[in-house]
Amino acid sequence: MDDLSHLNKTPAFIVDRDIVARNCERMRAKAEASGVIFRPHVKTHKTVEIARMQHGGSTGPVTVSTLAEAELLSRAGFGDITYAVPIAPDRAGVAGNVTGINLLVDSVEALQAVEALDRQTDVFLKIDCGYHRAGVDPDDPKSLDLARRMASSEKIRFRGLLTHAGHSYHAKNADEVLAVARQETDAVTRFRDRLGIDVIRSIGSTPTTSVVERFENCDEVRPGNYVFFDAFQAAIGSCRMADVAASVLTTVIGSYPERRALIVDAGALALSKDLGPNHIHPEFGYGVVCDLNLRRLPMRLHALSQEHGTIETDMTLPVGTRLRIVPNHSCLTAAMYPSYVVVEKGRFVDEWIPARGW
Amino acid sequence: MDDLSHLNKTPAFIVDRDIVARNCERMRAKAEASGVIFRPHVKTHKTVEIARMQHGGSTGPVTVSTLAEAELLSRAGFGDITYAVPIAPDRAGVAGNVTGINLLVDSVEALQAVEALDRQTDVFLKIDCGYHRAGVDPDDPKSLDLARRMASSEKIRFRGLLTHAGHSYHAKNADEVLAVARQETDAVTRFRDRLGIDVIRSIGSTPTTSVVERFENCDEVRPGNYVFFDAFQAAIGSCRMADVAASVLTTVIGSYPERRALIVDAGALALSKDLGPNHIHPEFGYGVVCDLNLRRLPMRLHALSQEHGTIETDMTLPVGTRLRIVPNHSCLTAAMYPSYVVVEKGRFVDEWIPARGW
Repeated sequence: MDDLSHLNKTPAFIVDRDIVARNCERMRAKAEASGVIFRPHVKTHKTVEIARMQHGGSTGPVTVSTLAEAELLSRAGFGDITYAVPIAPDRAGVAGNVTGINLLVDSVEALQAVEALDRQTDVFLKIDCGYHRAGVDPDDPKSLDLARRMASSEKIRFRGLLTHAGHSYHAKNADEVLAVARQETDAVTRFRDRLGIDVIRSIGSTPTTSVVERFENCDEVRPGNYVFFDAFQAAIGSCRMADVAASVLTTVIGSYPERRALIVDAGALALSKDLGPNHIHPEFGYGVVCDLNLRRLPMRLHALSQEHGTIETDMTLPVGTRLRIVPNHSCLTAAMYPSYVVVEKGRFVDEWIPARGW
Repeated sequence: MDDLSHLNKTPAFIVDRDIVARNCERMRAKAEASGVIFRPHVKTHKTVEIARMQHGGSTGPVTVSTLAEAELLSRAGFGDITYAVPIAPDRAGVAGNVTGINLLVDSVEALQAVEALDRQTDVFLKIDCGYHRAGVDPDDPKSLDLARRMASSEKIRFRGLLTHAGHSYHAKNADEVLAVARQETDAVTRFRDRLGIDVIRSIGSTPTTSVVERFENCDEVRPGNYVFFDAFQAAIGSCRMADVAASVLTTVIGSYPERRALIVDAGALALSKDLGPNHIHPEFGYGVVCDLNLRRLPMRLHALSQEHGTIETDMTLPVGTRLRIVPNHSCLTAAMYPSYVVVEKGRFVDEWIPARGW
């Protein structure tokens, strides 16, 4: 870890390329073995480099969470891009201009906005599989009406049913995640069967796609966080801590053994204020504090202000010591950085620039 | 609010220039009337434009939280810049290269790193006034030893004692903030008197500097959040809601009256996951939901995922409706945006680009 101990710009977002490659390959191989369309989400990393790694080194279908991501990937040659947030009617025009984009709707208002575009757009219908964030209720007759209207519209191509089991994040272990995984595939399968039209059933969340052995009762999968994973995913059983590919390099800038405290230069803007798996471990803190070799230290990162992290510990470390923090939620942490420091076996090998904004 | 209802790029960070100007002028006038050095913090906005407004339209002493802010302001002609985070020893060299920078230390290790620079640097000693984040204990004899060493060093200029009453954020009302304000000035005054050297006593937090009538028992003040304020500051009594100059413009992208829910396109990356004044109002939510004229609506923004905000409400609004969210913590929210949309009386008048990263 020689390069990391000499990097004099902290906080820094460190990506281990070998681990990303392994995570990418495992999920891609599972999708291939299952015979489903693999449309990984890029929202966690927002880079062309990792989007290509998700597809084994080439372009392929992808999922995005912002138009900024869609525009970046479209320019890089990705030609089949699902923008998996219900489209705001006023943004349909801008979105429709991105080459290769597919849009998502769950309301008549949004559908009308997409139908009003001057070219035919591929559209998915969002189904609520129990998360109760976005999506129509698959048991509500009005949802079937909307789907039939989409199927008969000449202004759009009705591509499929898209759902996201975000409530897998409420699980406490892999068995609970498995139960949610079944709800996810059941919701789209049941709705498609009642609709009686052969459209794509698209599912995906990192917990549900990580715990199943193979993908069944679906036609397309869209995991995203799995490229990096994080402390939360390890806590609920999506991965091991050794599978987490991202960490924040930080420096001890204050050492106060008399109050059992250290201050590091990673605060809320370097980590995000995500509380992590506090539904399992209420005192988890804002990330897992490790040494440079990612060995966990007996420390709790219990408070964050804008540019300071406060660690409670009985260990005494001098000012200037380098630490690594495994983030609670790698999607939110990665988004805070203008660039990622890419390492392989502890050596700097690259710098990647993520998309930003909307 | 005509321009806002037609802006088709949401989420957007909206800054009301008239309110910023009023907040800036009030604090500047109080500092001037009190006869203290006014060194406002720029960490909340990170822009040259507002830094100049803080000084009534010109440059002047400022405080920064990152070297990126220091470099931006130095290039813009600000020549007296205090970097108010204890310097990481390995970064002293980079920091020392910024023209006009003053550094902060609270350890021998950091002091030695600054002394090793090839030019004499102005240095402040950080004092802990009860917040127990960074800073030396003013009652510990070792703290006096460090201060005396700084005073006698030929490699640096010992400029003063700097403290930050961050524990004013634990207060529940203006009276409790006032008690913290007294601790803040007492800590540096007592330490200076024991030290017996006439150095600057620098204090500052937006709550403590907002609630006092004038600045006493100090020589310099460094408030920052007051330029925008936010829902948290209003809750603890630093300001009124009408003084909050920043909001997030968002669009309703999902409407589900059957589950009493709306989804907006402002999620964790558009707002930050700061819980706001939940020490006073445990169910506060992730920001205050308002209409386009900033009238509060009967809605609770109770969950955020990366790009979705989930609102609980009995109101039914159609997809496409515009709302404004007053952020819990404007410093963290502002930092999420590549640019700010600046309005005056509801009309777009400018776009400002904040510094980013470290």
